[in-house]
Amino acid sequence: MSTPSKIIYTFTDEAPALATYSLLPIVEAFAASAGIAVETRDISLAARILASFADQLDADKQVDDDLAKLAVLATSPEANIIKLPNISASVPQLKAAIAELQAQGYNIPNFPEDPHTDAEKEARARYSKVLGSAVNPVLREGNSDRRAPAAVKAFVRKHPHSMGKWSMASQSHADYMRGGDFFSSEQSITMANAGDVRIEFVGKDGKVEVKKQLALQEGEVFDSMYMSCRKLRDFFEKTLQDCKDTGVMWSLHVKATMMKVSHPIVFGHAVSVYYKDVFDKYGKLFEELGVNPNNGISSVYDKIKSLPASQQEEILDDIHACYSGRPEMAMVDSVKGITNLHIPSDVIVDASMPAMIRSSGQMWGKDGKLKDTKAVMPESTYARIYQEMINFCKTNGAFDPTTMGSVPNVGLMAQKAEEYGSHDKTFEMTVDGSMRVVLADGTVLMQHEVEAGDIWRACQTKDAPIRDWVKLAVTRARQSNTPAIFWLDPERAHDRELQKKVEVYLQDHDLTGLDIRMMDYNQAIRVSMERLIRGLDTISVTGNVLRDYLTDLFPIMELGTSAKMLSIVPLMAGGGMYETGAGGSAPKHVQQLIEENHLRWDSLGEFLALAVSLEETGIKTNNAKAKLLGTTLDAATGKLLDSNKSPSRKTGELDNRGSHFYLALYWTQELAAQTEDLALQAQFAPLAKALGDNEAAIVAELSAVQGKPVDIGGYYRSNPQLTSQVMRPSATFNAALAALA
Amino acid sequence: MSTPSKIIYTFTDEAPALATYSLLPIVEAFAASAGIAVETRDISLAARILASFADQLDADKQVDDDLAKLAVLATSPEANIIKLPNISASVPQLKAAIAELQAQGYNIPNFPEDPHTDAEKEARARYSKVLGSAVNPVLREGNSDRRAPAAVKAFVRKHPHSMGKWSMASQSHADYMRGGDFFSSEQSITMANAGDVRIEFVGKDGKVEVKKQLALQEGEVFDSMYMSCRKLRDFFEKTLQDCKDTGVMWSLHVKATMMKVSHPIVFGHAVSVYYKDVFDKYGKLFEELGVNPNNGISSVYDKIKSLPASQQEEILDDIHACYSGRPEMAMVDSVKGITNLHIPSDVIVDASMPAMIRSSGQMWGKDGKLKDTKAVMPESTYARIYQEMINFCKTNGAFDPTTMGSVPNVGLMAQKAEEYGSHDKTFEMTVDGSMRVVLADGTVLMQHEVEAGDIWRACQTKDAPIRDWVKLAVTRARQSNTPAIFWLDPERAHDRELQKKVEVYLQDHDLTGLDIRMMDYNQAIRVSMERLIRGLDTISVTGNVLRDYLTDLFPIMELGTSAKMLSIVPLMAGGGMYETGAGGSAPKHVQQLIEENHLRWDSLGEFLALAVSLEETGIKTNNAKAKLLGTTLDAATGKLLDSNKSPSRKTGELDNRGSHFYLALYWTQELAAQTEDLALQAQFAPLAKALGDNEAAIVAELSAVQGKPVDIGGYYRSNPQLTSQVMRPSATFNAALAALA
Repeated sequence: MSTPSKIIYTFTDEAPALATYSLLPIVEAFAASAGIAVETRDISLAARILASFADQLDADKQVDDDLAKLAVLATSPEANIIKLPNISASVPQLKAAIAELQAQGYNIPNFPEDPHTDAEKEARARYSKVLGSAVNPVLREGNSDRRAPAAVKAFVRKHPHSMGKWSMASQSHADYMRGGDFFSSEQSITMANAGDVRIEFVGKDGKVEVKKQLALQEGEVFDSMYMSCRKLRDFFEKTLQDCKDTGVMWSLHVKATMMKVSHPIVFGHAVSVYYKDVFDKYGKLFEELGVNPNNGISSVYDKIKSLPASQQEEILDDIHACYSGRPEMAMVDSVKGITNLHIPSDVIVDASMPAMIRSSGQMWGKDGKLKDTKAVMPESTYARIYQEMINFCKTNGAFDPTTMGSVPNVGLMAQKAEEYGSHDKTFEMTVDGSMRVVLADGTVLMQHEVEAGDIWRACQTKDAPIRDWVKLAVTRARQSNTPAIFWLDPERAHDRELQKKVEVYLQDHDLTGLDIRMMDYNQAIRVSMERLIRGLDTISVTGNVLRDYLTDLFPIMELGTSAKMLSIVPLMAGGGMYETGAGGSAPKHVQQLIEENHLRWDSLGEFLALAVSLEETGIKTNNAKAKLLGTTLDAATGKLLDSNKSPSRKTGELDNRGSHFYLALYWTQELAAQTEDLALQAQFAPLAKALGDNEAAIVAELSAVQGKPVDIGGYYRSNPQLTSQVMRPSATFNAALAALA
Repeated sequence: MSTPSKIIYTFTDEAPALATYSLLPIVEAFAASAGIAVETRDISLAARILASFADQLDADKQVDDDLAKLAVLATSPEANIIKLPNISASVPQLKAAIAELQAQGYNIPNFPEDPHTDAEKEARARYSKVLGSAVNPVLREGNSDRRAPAAVKAFVRKHPHSMGKWSMASQSHADYMRGGDFFSSEQSITMANAGDVRIEFVGKDGKVEVKKQLALQEGEVFDSMYMSCRKLRDFFEKTLQDCKDTGVMWSLHVKATMMKVSHPIVFGHAVSVYYKDVFDKYGKLFEELGVNPNNGISSVYDKIKSLPASQQEEILDDIHACYSGRPEMAMVDSVKGITNLHIPSDVIVDASMPAMIRSSGQMWGKDGKLKDTKAVMPESTYARIYQEMINFCKTNGAFDPTTMGSVPNVGLMAQKAEEYGSHDKTFEMTVDGSMRVVLADGTVLMQHEVEAGDIWRACQTKDAPIRDWVKLAVTRARQSNTPAIFWLDPERAHDRELQKKVEVYLQDHDLTGLDIRMMDYNQAIRVSMERLIRGLDTISVTGNVLRDYLTDLFPIMELGTSAKMLSIVPLMAGGGMYETGAGGSAPKHVQQLIEENHLRWDSLGEFLALAVSLEETGIKTNNAKAKLLGTTLDAATGKLLDSNKSPSRKTGELDNRGSHFYLALYWTQELAAQTEDLALQAQFAPLAKALGDNEAAIVAELSAVQGKPVDIGGYYRSNPQLTSQVMRPSATFNAALAALA
């Protein structure tokens, strides 16, 4: 007998939220047939803002803090969460959302740029909590299991995406620091017992400044490391000279969005080295104006607007003069003249490097042509894997999506593991001295001599997530009968600590017949690639950064996108979270809907996640109907791909809503055709017939509405009634679905 | 007590033979003190010619067949042979030697270019046996142990050779066939029992032609493989087009000298593809003239000389016209305009690739400048290691001789193992059909469908050498406490057979504490290089071709030359052969001696080989004095290097004879200083004093003779008295040495 259960479907932002208006009614109708309730939780930016100010709103305007509730749920065994992409809000986005909510009658304060009063400070603190990547870290109470679904893989083998040809004579490469970076300075310890530590700076004068106090758990791994500002700047200068000499284009690849404290500083040095002459000449003026190179060269353009026209012109001339002494730079938008150094969030290493490798190792030059490129990635820790892949492509040619295997990932992610939780422990040095990590009893655990400008950071990795990660790796290796490689570099202090734990925790499992190895990153990626081109799969078992990088890198080669990956977070408490898509929340899609009533968003990620959620629910709660819903949804998704019923980008053709209809059609046909559960068969047979008979009519209704602007009553918080009407325009389809209940 | 023993010192050709006149008296004098006799065996080209015609010469002109005697000795346990480099005679060299011997009164026949009479045929058959690489295959009754001597390594760390800087943007690479080559067609079997096999060709008409009959031993590994002529030519065309497109220079790397049947054909296809227009246009004429592209484009120049001037000019114009449609080609001699395709013996892969990699991955263009290059090596089997090293250098920069470790080699070589014994089993197909290997009972062991032009070959590897090779690998790993990697590619049929044997034979040994692994070539070279740049040593345990390639490749990076390697052949019967140098017999050095009485030949290889020979003799015959002679010689060699007493290239400075004096001085000083054997100490003390006191006088005597021409009465067979006088010009030194006896 089955236990009653429910699926929590997150309501998020922009395109995924719009798609939810169309997809959710279908999901609810089908899930009900297995006794599964589907509930939503609103974790949109708007809802999170409103929840932050619930105490200041009228009762009828108050909104629950669904994110906080979800965070609690994530730590309970019954969690079953479908997590759609949400906005990681920048300040401009936040301000726009605030304005919209105020216009809708929500009495919330403005965003205080420069808070002075207590009220302003309080508001700023509340808004800070909704800024940036504020959802995932809270919900990710488990490690990560990402893989290419069989249906997607099969589809790609038949309909491969384009892959740029590689030349053996390609000059492209990845360049990184050979000393002076985080890699070379990393120290790591494992806490024998729980204990408090403090991070402190000791000045040349012996004065001690406590930067941070932390309570560490027993068995927690704690790392510290720094990047030398001087060596970083020397490195940038050397790479620029090298490109100037060889004629290879220069490009910078960091992850300023995620590594939100350290990487903007690294990015800023790139800007002020590239435009060294300008920053040298106008140093004092720029300081007065508040120019911040960490915001990109656009910061200069912004801030000089207050100057007289002639002075502006002089500075712009000097900026242009810089280009003659510098190599050509990769363009983000060659038409608009936007380079790699314009703003820090345009080029994100985990997306930009796979794109480069997929495009013959080339990036766009200012003439709009693809060119060989030096990809500059200061941190050598992870940059080396890209150079390994570039060398591999030079030698073996581009990957072939029709024959290549797969590299699924098991990633250590839970509880803000490793660098991705380092932001509150990252410091830019203002003077020379030493940084140290000290136990409560005064024992110095780690120490670095640092100089002004150096970036020092500490990372935490708790023991329970590591133990769970090892278990997940073994489970995946067993379930998929696939070799698994732990990517652990014996030359990294942190990885040596992890390796000890992995060796111990592996003993908790039956490893009979499994092929589980540990290799440094270069070896690991190389072996995985050698297998890949022979059609063989290899599980990568990695830390948090590599998880993020690899689950773009390999999917983009294999599937052309990382959005088609299954992204499961088996929660440590026993529940499951199923993340859908990885392509962000797609603001351009919303614009197209509003202007032309066409939504190109592809809900494939939701279909895939739902199928796994249903299957796992079925297994966990002994609900055979749920399992069957899952397997039939998988089959329907495969058929959808095969029949080319994914949304088109072009207005007038099948869009998100149309693909939802086809999903419902195929899903119901699968259920009507199966004989495992005759009750379900009987229940879905009429719907299968109704949808099949009315296919042309429904598609026509869905198509008829397109081409005209629509009003959904808001961007960040659209009107539910209006939006639902827009997103469910087929009366025939709606009626057929309603008849199922 | 020690057993009486002797060292056999080979008398060879050209510079090494000249140096022997000076060095041997020193060796004899020192060895005598340990009761060791030193005997010579004359295996010079001249002696081998004369021995071949002993039955046709007067009694006083007859010469023993020392090579045949040495071959017998090599299979007996007391063999202790110092083997110096000898001439591998080409036909022009052979003819010159014959002429010289005839002039000296030896009644030997001329070399019959085109033998007709029985006598001519007989003479041709006898001469054929002294042509080419006729010595090493006969004597190498053991596997190969090559390593950098500690003294040399220490010297290089202090006085590194130059290494060209590598750019990450380098376009250089190694290109090879991706199918259709020997690698992809390789089949291999192991003979369960001894048995006769025949190699036969079956025509499309079913007619069977037996190409070769062979008696195989029990446990012998037998391989067959072919290279597709069509795919080879397509490959060449593709590489030429690619270079034309990318502007990278084209160069060909084969080993036509050693792989003397298959590689000249491969080379010939490169010539006739590059100059396709000319070979198409003049095909018939060239055939009549006897042009053979396997001899290089120089064959065209040679053969058209018989044509009228105007026709010659037309052909030369057409040859020049070819260049405009083809990429730039790497030059062997840019001043003389000699390219890679001029003659087949100019570019030898195992020497040319390390030279390219040492020179920033570049080769010389026609303008005398170094340029990025596509190194074309059709056989993918071994070419891949060069691409791996090129990628490694692009990523990590040039190797640093002052910090790098070492990659010694244990090579499977005995009894003409693998490809290096394939010459009499290599066939160029004239028509389509199939090649097969058939047991006496008719069982078809291996079969390939072949087309006209394809190159088919079979290789033998006997079981005893494999067993001995495994033993040598384990011994070296143990003695040097160094990890050893068997380079065995599971994707190669031959290597899979070997792997099975290695796994069995490893069980014969105590492996406790040893680190012995098996890896495919790419993995093996990569791991070795990763260790290398961290200062760590790794023994490469390889087959015969890789032995040859790697013992140039790594030494040229580590030591700047492969001539400074210890090259020991532990003979399977228990004896030892110590090969000295690897730089050939240096004809230019002889010319300098005759014209200016300066011999720049460096006898370092002889010093190193002698030291090991003495040490091993000491151990094998329980002769402590011999062992002591060995260790003191090693110390003396180290001091010689450190004191920069190696021969200079410049006339007037210290030459070969001077360095021999210093070796004697340091060796005798070491012996006089040691206290392990007081009798030896007492014996050598006076000599140490005499040489030390007279250092200036002796060096002056040695220097005084230089700068004037000398007559040694012959090139291939110089007059012993004249040569000895020239090579021992210091009366003071000679007298001191004579006093030792």
